[in-house]
Amino acid sequence: MKQKILALCGGVGGAKLAYGLSQLTTPEEIVFLVNTGDDFIHLDLHISPDLDTVMYTLAGVNDPKKGWGVKEETWNALGSLKKYGLDTWFQLGDKDLATHIRRTQLLKEGLKLSEVTRNLSSQLGLKHNILPMSESPVQTMIQTDQGKLSFQEYFVKHKCDPKIEKIEFLGSEVAEVPTSLEELIKDDKFTGIIICPSNPYLSVDPILSINKIRTFLLETNIPILAVSPIIDNDSIKGPTAKIMDEMKVEPSVNAIAAHYSELINILVIDQKDKDNQANIGSIDYLVDSIYMKNNEDKVSLAKVCLEELRKLA
Amino acid sequence: MKQKILALCGGVGGAKLAYGLSQLTTPEEIVFLVNTGDDFIHLDLHISPDLDTVMYTLAGVNDPKKGWGVKEETWNALGSLKKYGLDTWFQLGDKDLATHIRRTQLLKEGLKLSEVTRNLSSQLGLKHNILPMSESPVQTMIQTDQGKLSFQEYFVKHKCDPKIEKIEFLGSEVAEVPTSLEELIKDDKFTGIIICPSNPYLSVDPILSINKIRTFLLETNIPILAVSPIIDNDSIKGPTAKIMDEMKVEPSVNAIAAHYSELINILVIDQKDKDNQANIGSIDYLVDSIYMKNNEDKVSLAKVCLEELRKLA
Repeated sequence: MKQKILALCGGVGGAKLAYGLSQLTTPEEIVFLVNTGDDFIHLDLHISPDLDTVMYTLAGVNDPKKGWGVKEETWNALGSLKKYGLDTWFQLGDKDLATHIRRTQLLKEGLKLSEVTRNLSSQLGLKHNILPMSESPVQTMIQTDQGKLSFQEYFVKHKCDPKIEKIEFLGSEVAEVPTSLEELIKDDKFTGIIICPSNPYLSVDPILSINKIRTFLLETNIPILAVSPIIDNDSIKGPTAKIMDEMKVEPSVNAIAAHYSELINILVIDQKDKDNQANIGSIDYLVDSIYMKNNEDKVSLAKVCLEELRKLA
Repeated sequence: MKQKILALCGGVGGAKLAYGLSQLTTPEEIVFLVNTGDDFIHLDLHISPDLDTVMYTLAGVNDPKKGWGVKEETWNALGSLKKYGLDTWFQLGDKDLATHIRRTQLLKEGLKLSEVTRNLSSQLGLKHNILPMSESPVQTMIQTDQGKLSFQEYFVKHKCDPKIEKIEFLGSEVAEVPTSLEELIKDDKFTGIIICPSNPYLSVDPILSINKIRTFLLETNIPILAVSPIIDNDSIKGPTAKIMDEMKVEPSVNAIAAHYSELINILVIDQKDKDNQANIGSIDYLVDSIYMKNNEDKVSLAKVCLEELRKLA
């Protein structure tokens, strides 16, 4: 049977698995559903950091060292914006800037964010389908000990330093799910769902905050697999472990299993955690190497995920 | 007596003399009034080519080889915009792009173009006063044998190739002259006016198409000096001579004198044209070296202009 996968992902970590998945599937076999809770308007430009990371990664133009942005990037526009007295905490590369300019222009012309994403990614030679979780703005707002911050303020400007008290997703109640996703759900087209190893609180929860998507995941009978963003009680990259600490949750694969317990059938965890499998809900664990340091690792992990979903189907 | 000069200029040629003038005057002693007929919206950015050329030149950050744009420029955003299928006939450097982004942002915030220009140029360390000829859009439209073109389409996209039939300045009747210029005129503050060696038809005429400015120049008793953009029956740079041909005017210093005959008292011409002084109206000729190949030449010519205006005052 042909697979039809829905892959939920955020930025860097999620994009790595997404790359692996894209190498093993035709464009018809997978939809990448990407967090847009980090989107923001900066210098009057519409910036979609996670959509861009996934798009650049799948198109092979990403900066493999940083994980985000475009390879062989220069920073001259940013340097000049700084001279004009502008706040330049958000790193805007010259090549990357073109994406924001074009996205802003197409949105202004009346295209939906999914259409813009399709347009941009196809111009980069990408055939796989990247969808924003919402056509309308859903903004991740973080209540911290230093006040309420937008995701970018928290993540980039304050370098995840403030202590998180509460996370909200403004606009999620009225989020406009892309029509093509709604149709795939309605027509029962998916055969499996993957939650990529992105930050559960800041990258995946925004997607799950949208009622139509959460309800689909809660009610569907198709298998749902998640890949742990935690290895050996620490984040692979980024602030996941720190945030779990602040949320009074011990950073562990079990905490991840508990976080997704209502949704997933199986959690893929690393070899290093093979002795840490607590019995949580009806969740199974699959042990593999989940640290993706190169493209081979990404494809290898993707293969494990696809095969497991095939078995569970 | 302290001088107070009004210098009318377009892009490259005008900016050269403007640079020379800026080296010999305090910011209180001169106002640079710049053509904005070439301004256009591109990628939803407000681009003011002549304002930028004058600003970059006076701030010493211009590309001395090209005459326009910023020195040590890179072109990576443009390369990426091209990948997104965009029309990239207009050369947008990465550093230059920052200027357009910031200008667009400030205009959107409600600042007038003169305020934006003040803001940008002061951030570049510039104390001299650069004013746009109009706060509101005045668009140079060129009727050619290949149809009606905007200035940028004619000049950059079509490389001045179409034959000019007629030039119009849309919006000039309702142009909003900067308040500070109006006040200087009303209070009779200027002691001399210089028309810089820019293209008379495409760079200076747009400024003169604005009634308040033209009337002031026609009615004032203060001396007006122009520097010829023609040397030895050819343009110094750009399409002036070609356009004169198409306008059925022989490219010569006399034709320039005739073009400005109602306005100016004196035309500064090059040594090479010293034998070509026809008696036109009440115009005198001043012979000097007007080809500016380096900064010394610019200052030297500026000195001649300022001294001549002092004599005539």
